[in-house]
Amino acid sequence: MIKYPNGSRVKVDKTIDYGRRGMSLEDDLNATNKYYLESDIAAVYKKPTPIQITKVEYKSRATARITEAYFQTPSTTDYNGVYKNLYIDFEAKETQSKTSLVSSMIHPHQLAHMERVIRYGGIAFVIVRFYSLDETYFVFAAKIINYLRSAQRKSIPHAWFVENGILIPYNYLIKVDYLKVIDQLILEGK
Amino acid sequence: MIKYPNGSRVKVDKTIDYGRRGMSLEDDLNATNKYYLESDIAAVYKKPTPIQITKVEYKSRATARITEAYFQTPSTTDYNGVYKNLYIDFEAKETQSKTSLVSSMIHPHQLAHMERVIRYGGIAFVIVRFYSLDETYFVFAAKIINYLRSAQRKSIPHAWFVENGILIPYNYLIKVDYLKVIDQLILEGK
Repeated sequence: MIKYPNGSRVKVDKTIDYGRRGMSLEDDLNATNKYYLESDIAAVYKKPTPIQITKVEYKSRATARITEAYFQTPSTTDYNGVYKNLYIDFEAKETQSKTSLVSSMIHPHQLAHMERVIRYGGIAFVIVRFYSLDETYFVFAAKIINYLRSAQRKSIPHAWFVENGILIPYNYLIKVDYLKVIDQLILEGK
Repeated sequence: MIKYPNGSRVKVDKTIDYGRRGMSLEDDLNATNKYYLESDIAAVYKKPTPIQITKVEYKSRATARITEAYFQTPSTTDYNGVYKNLYIDFEAKETQSKTSLVSSMIHPHQLAHMERVIRYGGIAFVIVRFYSLDETYFVFAAKIINYLRSAQRKSIPHAWFVENGILIPYNYLIKVDYLKVIDQLILEGK
């Protein structure tokens, strides 16, 4: 509460934040992909969560109501699409921790999928946000795969991302401009 | 019923078919994509159907049961993936008709999506099966888009597919070997 000179009290809502915080990485990526789409730059989509449907009620021909279903484990990463002749494939992870990302957040079948993508000539990467630090990193899947497989590591330290990742700049229009990172890599001939 | 010389009657199950018939195009494509994956050739997946979840019951930490949900209209095509550095994107349609495919089976937003894919350098196509004729065609999205937009056509005749499509051969191991068609196009430099 703020006490004004005239004695009235104004409640300050601490949840209001005009910067990035408050938005999840998924929301920011959806907004970014929508921006890319509407600007006619790239077509990248989040795959729907796979769901096993066990019961459906048909009220009419046009409407079906699912009354029993269960979440399934995805066999691939969450995002893929096409940009400048390239197949783009990535997974996005967000952590509240300031020190590390728990390795189990990236599933073994997702690592295997990203390895395939690399073999077939696609660009595979991971976007990791340290929410409390307000930092979002772009990391090539190959680097994360090497790191996680070189030893049984339970987590990836924040310092590792600083060294091996590329900080993705935030701007109001493009929340997570990961294609800018890819543009830079194309320019450098990587 | 077949009457044998000894007078016994054997019921012949007419639903048994050792060829392709009886399997849906989706089943055949899933088997094909699985074959490509296991043979380390390409990573192509069917996107899960998007579902809007309205009610979830949490019995325990690990298990969640969806008790109310609805099917949503997909904004893209059903299949995409990566093969030989290429972004691959397609829609699959099956018809019981021997004469034509109803145009409304391919949604306008799917046509728009395939146009984008072409602009961004991916390979977009449609796989159409005439179930009763036992024929499966590969057609470039650009051709279908041109045809449907050149006039308000309610259907695409079978003869159009014969002329503009490429018949995909069936074999026991690879049910719908659409990558063979792409290989041919790569060879021809298209």
